[in-house]
Amino acid sequence: MTEKPLHLYNTLNRTKEKFTPLNPPFVGLYVCGPTVYGDGHLGHGRSAVTFDLLYRYLLHLGYKVRYVRNITDVGHLENDADEGEDKIAKKARLEQLEPMEVAQYFTQRYQENMRQLNNLSPGIEPRATGHIIEQIAMIEKIIKNGLAYESNGSVYFDVLKYNEQKPYGILSGRVIDELMTNTRELDGKEEKRNSLDFALWKKASPEHIMRWPSPWSEGFPGWHIECSAMSSKYLGETFDIHGGGMDLMFPHHECEIAQSNASNQKDPVKLWMHNNMITVNGKKMGKSLGNFITLNEFFCGDHALLTQAFSPMAIRFFILQAHYRSTLDFSNDALKAADKAYKRIINGLRNLRMLQVPEPGQIDADLEKRINEACDLAYEGMSDDLNSAVSLAALFDLLKAINSLRSGQIPSGALSEKTFARMKETYETFVLDIFGLIEEKGRTGHVLENLMETILDSYTDAKSRKDYAMVDRLRAKVKQEGILIKDSKTGVHWDYEE
Amino acid sequence: MTEKPLHLYNTLNRTKEKFTPLNPPFVGLYVCGPTVYGDGHLGHGRSAVTFDLLYRYLLHLGYKVRYVRNITDVGHLENDADEGEDKIAKKARLEQLEPMEVAQYFTQRYQENMRQLNNLSPGIEPRATGHIIEQIAMIEKIIKNGLAYESNGSVYFDVLKYNEQKPYGILSGRVIDELMTNTRELDGKEEKRNSLDFALWKKASPEHIMRWPSPWSEGFPGWHIECSAMSSKYLGETFDIHGGGMDLMFPHHECEIAQSNASNQKDPVKLWMHNNMITVNGKKMGKSLGNFITLNEFFCGDHALLTQAFSPMAIRFFILQAHYRSTLDFSNDALKAADKAYKRIINGLRNLRMLQVPEPGQIDADLEKRINEACDLAYEGMSDDLNSAVSLAALFDLLKAINSLRSGQIPSGALSEKTFARMKETYETFVLDIFGLIEEKGRTGHVLENLMETILDSYTDAKSRKDYAMVDRLRAKVKQEGILIKDSKTGVHWDYEE
Repeated sequence: MTEKPLHLYNTLNRTKEKFTPLNPPFVGLYVCGPTVYGDGHLGHGRSAVTFDLLYRYLLHLGYKVRYVRNITDVGHLENDADEGEDKIAKKARLEQLEPMEVAQYFTQRYQENMRQLNNLSPGIEPRATGHIIEQIAMIEKIIKNGLAYESNGSVYFDVLKYNEQKPYGILSGRVIDELMTNTRELDGKEEKRNSLDFALWKKASPEHIMRWPSPWSEGFPGWHIECSAMSSKYLGETFDIHGGGMDLMFPHHECEIAQSNASNQKDPVKLWMHNNMITVNGKKMGKSLGNFITLNEFFCGDHALLTQAFSPMAIRFFILQAHYRSTLDFSNDALKAADKAYKRIINGLRNLRMLQVPEPGQIDADLEKRINEACDLAYEGMSDDLNSAVSLAALFDLLKAINSLRSGQIPSGALSEKTFARMKETYETFVLDIFGLIEEKGRTGHVLENLMETILDSYTDAKSRKDYAMVDRLRAKVKQEGILIKDSKTGVHWDYEE
Repeated sequence: MTEKPLHLYNTLNRTKEKFTPLNPPFVGLYVCGPTVYGDGHLGHGRSAVTFDLLYRYLLHLGYKVRYVRNITDVGHLENDADEGEDKIAKKARLEQLEPMEVAQYFTQRYQENMRQLNNLSPGIEPRATGHIIEQIAMIEKIIKNGLAYESNGSVYFDVLKYNEQKPYGILSGRVIDELMTNTRELDGKEEKRNSLDFALWKKASPEHIMRWPSPWSEGFPGWHIECSAMSSKYLGETFDIHGGGMDLMFPHHECEIAQSNASNQKDPVKLWMHNNMITVNGKKMGKSLGNFITLNEFFCGDHALLTQAFSPMAIRFFILQAHYRSTLDFSNDALKAADKAYKRIINGLRNLRMLQVPEPGQIDADLEKRINEACDLAYEGMSDDLNSAVSLAALFDLLKAINSLRSGQIPSGALSEKTFARMKETYETFVLDIFGLIEEKGRTGHVLENLMETILDSYTDAKSRKDYAMVDRLRAKVKQEGILIKDSKTGVHWDYEE
């Protein structure tokens, strides 16, 4: 197999670079996970599927990957100015619930969505509330290094002072002077020295439920510090890849870089990867814009913008068919097309499995060449910054050949055994292992009831025709599944075998 | 409905007492969950199903239940003397994994087992590692109250001193003098003052991976303190019900009572409930005895002691058919019987749904009486300390009537509309809501392939007989499930509709 070395686009230097782990064969991967105060939407889905694709491909290449994706169950404030209520605590008070009940509820729904999308589980899903000690320890180091200050029980990162040592803005390509121009003046009553400063620790107001003791106050950590504390705990002070949605690049990831440098004098991450956003008719998707669709709403079709339900695999395919750094525009038609294409790919998989290994015959050299090129192209796509769009196009080339072999339009002997094996292996590896597409068999209960109804129809018909061979065949076949066909006074029905 | 008030057996005073919540309609329920360094076994299954039954019944009665079940991801030492390695860290070093990766892996498998058993998820599943701060705070209070002491960086609970204020052993019915006689002499080199003392905080040895800073040392909490710290955090200093397996009564729950009294001067729990153990041929089940069967091994039949696989619902039924305070002896025959009985119950549910509301007819007064008594008995069983065995027997009484109605042996009009409605409601409520039994529809993929093969057989047959009405019916019916029957050169097959 001619696998070209994997190249990935590094946001830090705006170029695709050859991927070389710090300590091969180990790879440390950290991805920003959800804030669990509501259901995940299509944007969460895109980020999770994108980094699942990366994780799967790294595993396919033989790396041993420690994949960490955090769960933010505290400290994500409602606006970027670090004011307003903690989102989780607010929801809890409204519903008279313990904040951890809200967090658990939405964490479970998120994890269920991830399973539905067939994303592999990260090896560690650390919770922000489970790492308060580590966050406090990191804040203490930053204060000790003179790059954070306490103010009225809260602690802020001193961006201007940090910028004297190392430029703030290297990831997002911003410069401090521009940032300064674009922020509001402080009115003198605020705790921050500068409006660019961000909270590392916030003193809890009396009504704030989630709070922990600290050297500065009873309070809670700022949002940015959790990722720095947890990534360094589980992956070390410098690790290979940090991923997340493009919207997190600034300020969140920028702050992570600053925090790590301020506490450890080290850049935390070698390679930063950001997936692009989902748009709806060209507009950003967001709660405030009213065009926000959750994954659960997609799965059950329950949203004004949706003309029908879309299955998890249709959503997954929709995400995979575009390169992760392109924007992806939602529309019902685009999703319908994705669903159709997904089903074509899965039918190809089923058909492939029914093909026999070719008998020696008249080899079709052009066909051989086309198939080998498609196999090469599938891998080349992935090596080129995970370009799943290219790899999928290659799979559709293979699919054409598979379907023609299945229908008999191409004779079985037209392919050499070797090329047939390569086609089969490439197609299966990509569909199942790398793209993580699986056969969706419908809602079990419904399918079972309906198919059994169909069989009872044939059964009654066979009985009326006195075709007892068929009657026995039908009985025997469903019995293999633990189902008994029963004749009674009230008609024919079926039961589970007891 | 004549629901008798719920009575529950309180281990504290060895009597069944009327259940009265501290703050109705709210009920606080804490149950000891798994230590996540290995797969859950049948004993874990029994405890989880028992308290799921309690949770479901409390919800059925209209209570608002906050159900907390912890996950022990640190600090459970290998022997009761608080020596030996932390179990999770040991496994991690053996496998060259981060301890949290091991914890996450087994937490997910445990949660998957719980879903398979159709246990409702607790509202909060707090992790021990996520509550180090709360544990340290509680230890500090106990030290301040003079009931714990530091020794070489570790902290121990002073059992003898505590016993001067309040008897140690009230839950398990032990007295301190007996306990003293049965423990070994300290050899003078140990950190403890008395061998009954238990660790609240352990200083980490250099090779110990999981560690946190504390006022005493870099170390980790003792096992018992996590439940005290987490239950009081989420349920308050005194709450309604604490559950767990009988093996946890001493020392674990005894220590919880002591810790709460020593820090808050309050008994933590009003009602202690303990489920009895699973035995194997009359012997205790345990790793060291080699008769240890995990839930996953049951589900796939992969254990030398198993003659076949047993589905999650067969296991659930097996657990429910005995009262939770009786021992439950495992055998293949007992499980087979449970599986059969479970299927009878589910067939009854399916049959019940196919029954029509009775037309006015000749009422059978005896039948009416029998059914009403069975409905009463179902509730009486549950009110009498969750005696699910009694309630199940009542359901089987109802089942007899349901099956006779379904087969036409009893004419539909023999039941009044009112009694029919009561029977239906009671049966459905018990099977689905209270017992949490659901229809298992087999491994989807397998069933689908097999039933479609059966249908293609009928289809081919109908075609050969030129019965085009049947051909069209079969095509139309499976198309409702998104399945297309296809004729091609290579024969008949089916595809997903694209």
